[in-house]
Amino acid sequence: MQVSSDDGTNGADFETATTGGDQMELRLWLRMLTCTNLIETEVRQQLRRQFGITLARFDLLAQLARAPKGLTMGQLSKRLMVSNGNVTGLISRLEGEGLVERQVAPHDKRAQIVRLTERGDQAFSNMLPAHSAWIRQLFGNLDPDDVLRLMNLLAKLKSNLPGRESDA
Amino acid sequence: MQVSSDDGTNGADFETATTGGDQMELRLWLRMLTCTNLIETEVRQQLRRQFGITLARFDLLAQLARAPKGLTMGQLSKRLMVSNGNVTGLISRLEGEGLVERQVAPHDKRAQIVRLTERGDQAFSNMLPAHSAWIRQLFGNLDPDDVLRLMNLLAKLKSNLPGRESDA
Repeated sequence: MQVSSDDGTNGADFETATTGGDQMELRLWLRMLTCTNLIETEVRQQLRRQFGITLARFDLLAQLARAPKGLTMGQLSKRLMVSNGNVTGLISRLEGEGLVERQVAPHDKRAQIVRLTERGDQAFSNMLPAHSAWIRQLFGNLDPDDVLRLMNLLAKLKSNLPGRESDA
Repeated sequence: MQVSSDDGTNGADFETATTGGDQMELRLWLRMLTCTNLIETEVRQQLRRQFGITLARFDLLAQLARAPKGLTMGQLSKRLMVSNGNVTGLISRLEGEGLVERQVAPHDKRAQIVRLTERGDQAFSNMLPAHSAWIRQLFGNLDPDDVLRLMNLLAKLKSNLPGRESDA
């Protein structure tokens, strides 16, 4: 969900009409949202088409693939920026399919650690090259300098954002 | 929902482990996602806190505020990138509160045009300055040159994305 897409003249009209036309940050934000949403939509469609998997499931497997020691429900929920309830349901279904497993946390018996099973790891590894190729293609008309510049500008933006992890 | 957040060393580990470490586009994409999600989360919280409104409702009012002649359900659904069903439910509730109105489309009696009412327009106008101020603050450590550079780089990215409107 997003404030509104950045669709050229309409967007400019909106901004001129409602903000006096001098708020570049709003235009920038709408453009960022549009790019992110278009890329996400494309990735979602490709995942469904080629692997019959939802983006939510892929994201969850990706998070677990990054954390070989496993993650608690709370960590997963925070990293995926979705509610605990949503994560719990998703995990239950993936567990039923043998893609993830839950274990009692070693240092806190009330907490559960979620991990990829070997089968889950394999399933994710099978999808990863395709996912990487889609991303490469979607960013394909940026040359290496553009990519670096964008990385740096977004790092600068991110360092000012509330709620980020300690990675600025 | 997103592939995974861009959280520094973990991210680097993930990318190195899974892609050979040379895929800058993937790192860029994760960073873009993180920035977008952090900004969206902040805007969502502020809307709820200061105006008691969901982001979905605000987005819908924003789209209608940009289209004084109104929009069909299909156009709204496309611009908000959500399903028709979701938009229909949202519109019904906003209509019940007198913020939007539905009319038969002048050139197609089977289609309905949705428009802001005067009250809806007023409600949106009341929220807009605060929204603009949040965005300005979130982007506050980018100087005007940074903003322009980001605008241009994202325009270049966007011109290569499938599914964009004819605004590249």
